[in-house]
Amino acid sequence: MLLLHWDKAINNETLKMGAFDISKRDQAIKRLESRRKSGELGFMDVSLSREKTAQIKETVSYIQKHGKDFIVLGIGGSSLGGKTMISALTNKFSNKGTKVTFIDNVDPDYFFELLNVLDLSSTVFNVISKSGSTAETMAQFLVIYKMLCDKLGKKEAVSRIILTTDPEKGALRPLVRSMGFNSFEVPQNIGGRFSVLTDVGLLPAAVAGIDIEGLVKGAQDIVKTGLNNNIDENSVLKYSLIKHNHYIKGRTCSVIMPYSTKLADFSAWYVQLWAESLGKKGLGQTPIPATGATDQHSQLQLFMEGPKDKFITFIGIEKTSTPVELPKFDVDVEAFSYLSGHTMHELIRAEMLSTEKALSENGVPSVRIEIPELDAYHLGALFMFFEMAVALTGEFLEINAFDQPGVELSKKYTYKMMGRKGY
Amino acid sequence: MLLLHWDKAINNETLKMGAFDISKRDQAIKRLESRRKSGELGFMDVSLSREKTAQIKETVSYIQKHGKDFIVLGIGGSSLGGKTMISALTNKFSNKGTKVTFIDNVDPDYFFELLNVLDLSSTVFNVISKSGSTAETMAQFLVIYKMLCDKLGKKEAVSRIILTTDPEKGALRPLVRSMGFNSFEVPQNIGGRFSVLTDVGLLPAAVAGIDIEGLVKGAQDIVKTGLNNNIDENSVLKYSLIKHNHYIKGRTCSVIMPYSTKLADFSAWYVQLWAESLGKKGLGQTPIPATGATDQHSQLQLFMEGPKDKFITFIGIEKTSTPVELPKFDVDVEAFSYLSGHTMHELIRAEMLSTEKALSENGVPSVRIEIPELDAYHLGALFMFFEMAVALTGEFLEINAFDQPGVELSKKYTYKMMGRKGY
Repeated sequence: MLLLHWDKAINNETLKMGAFDISKRDQAIKRLESRRKSGELGFMDVSLSREKTAQIKETVSYIQKHGKDFIVLGIGGSSLGGKTMISALTNKFSNKGTKVTFIDNVDPDYFFELLNVLDLSSTVFNVISKSGSTAETMAQFLVIYKMLCDKLGKKEAVSRIILTTDPEKGALRPLVRSMGFNSFEVPQNIGGRFSVLTDVGLLPAAVAGIDIEGLVKGAQDIVKTGLNNNIDENSVLKYSLIKHNHYIKGRTCSVIMPYSTKLADFSAWYVQLWAESLGKKGLGQTPIPATGATDQHSQLQLFMEGPKDKFITFIGIEKTSTPVELPKFDVDVEAFSYLSGHTMHELIRAEMLSTEKALSENGVPSVRIEIPELDAYHLGALFMFFEMAVALTGEFLEINAFDQPGVELSKKYTYKMMGRKGY
Repeated sequence: MLLLHWDKAINNETLKMGAFDISKRDQAIKRLESRRKSGELGFMDVSLSREKTAQIKETVSYIQKHGKDFIVLGIGGSSLGGKTMISALTNKFSNKGTKVTFIDNVDPDYFFELLNVLDLSSTVFNVISKSGSTAETMAQFLVIYKMLCDKLGKKEAVSRIILTTDPEKGALRPLVRSMGFNSFEVPQNIGGRFSVLTDVGLLPAAVAGIDIEGLVKGAQDIVKTGLNNNIDENSVLKYSLIKHNHYIKGRTCSVIMPYSTKLADFSAWYVQLWAESLGKKGLGQTPIPATGATDQHSQLQLFMEGPKDKFITFIGIEKTSTPVELPKFDVDVEAFSYLSGHTMHELIRAEMLSTEKALSENGVPSVRIEIPELDAYHLGALFMFFEMAVALTGEFLEINAFDQPGVELSKKYTYKMMGRKGY
């Protein structure tokens, strides 16, 4: 399971702050519990029924049979979770099996380049939009549906597009009924940024051969203690409190820094979760994505000596089956021969601990979350850990972490410019 | 050339601020001019001599002859610029020609996966480190040198590794002399984050078939007016002043948001440039990477309704040769049929303008930089535009934008943990 570490000095300081007292904390947990009872927090009820497993399995067989490529068309919460799982848990460089690709924008050059090389006769698409009115995803859908029809005929085109959408409402569900598209569901009580462990993320993950039972199990194990009000038994609560107390004291930027290239997309997933859930009423930490050790050569200068507004969350991986030994060089070179005899895994761990120490000595607070290894179980746990932490932080701030009213105005202007009726 | 747009209301407000008077502005330009005279600002002397072009051409022929894969080993400034050019100006999905891949970390799993699929007999490596003591890059070098020796013998191994490093000093230059590695140069008066248009970035770009003369020409055209103190003739100065005045008024986070997936890596390049140059003495804007339209579904909520500390720089692309038409669907669906008859290019442009307008109405200031099209010339111009803007902003803040003292402490602790002598 996840382990939390933090600088003792920082923690004592935090406890002394007293900016956020126990009664408020308990009230926050109670409000979250009542949200759960009223059915708002579907993401906490993560599970994988026998029927669901069977449906996914059957679809995966179909895809693997027909598809060299599986292209996911979706944006925001409809792509970030899936992308994260694929890059964390599969080999990016391998050419074996079905290749899963996420197209999460309407960049015409990028889209055109993809279509130009794609062999449509061996491609299956997954269009993900809860409402069916996401302009970007629907634009992509129009293009690929027409191309598939032209190439393979209408019947085959329909069979090559899987729609993941609202189980009853929205613009896509009627097309499932009238035209016969294969479909999956975005549960009504789960918003996009909390949907990674629903059909939205699990289908692409399963296509890529990821252990989806493991993902779900890891998340479930976090849920078990996530609403416990005993800080020593609930790491979600402990993390959220430490971070929130620092936020109150001016740490308005929240850096996420996994020491792993394979978790770089996890940072992007976290950014959406944090920004869209908490950025309301002038409040909310600004999430900053970083990757260790890479960003020591990019953002560390700012974290060390820039404004004192950063709080860092490190994510470390304790063990790997592929540590990569660093061999001896032909001649002795003072500048790098000391590396020989160590492993690459030791090096990246040393860099993380060194950066944590240097930041701490410079007065920059941090928490380190360690996972024993990078696998489906622990990635599932990480997802749920941060989902519950953001929900709890929303209650600390007394805001609704589950809506996103601020994105509507820009959408309205887009509809107007594009000539949608009524705008 | 680049065009700047900004909300008139915001600009008038900015001019009224008077937080930064004309004499200070002129002093800043003078300080920068004297830095240039003293030879500190090598990045402004961007050029491509006949000899350099010939050297690159010859090396590219060698690489294309021997390499299905060209792997760049480098971190921070040694990879971000090259990565940006490759993703902006080449087709990610194409399998033609030599594939250029950047490995910018010491994630053992990721590195192992790459090595596992790589055909070493058709791979050429480029190791980039000015000092030759960058722990991450040297660790990678040790591994691949040994593997190449084992597979191809020492002589061939040496011929498959190109070292890009200091012309005289550092730990790698002596190896060029003693062992015969092919080599390129990182000029002594150009720091990593300003090195994109030197051998560091130009060699990988040329391998990928990018028009490196165009890149250099675009940058040179920005240099021509970049130190002009007439605000109407110098867009770098205008941009820097508007941004700086907003910074003084509390806009401490600087969002960069190109509306282009192909420019997503440009945002990462910008983050290093801004963070490492200005994050000093408690000062400096915190750079936030974003990609339009994608991040409208991730970060826009925060930009609209979160803390009033964001200043947004949009980058738009006016024209494309591949606009991608949005065809009609079989039936009329109110939620997306309005899109038909437009192009994907029109949609992404509409989203940008709509987001700009919505943010402006919410009091979030922004500047929009438009490039006529995404090609080598305009990408080169963008690089130089931001390099000069950060240099100028450093002078406004009265800090040295060209060092990075804050990253040393973490390095020292790493050396100590890894057993380097003297630490």
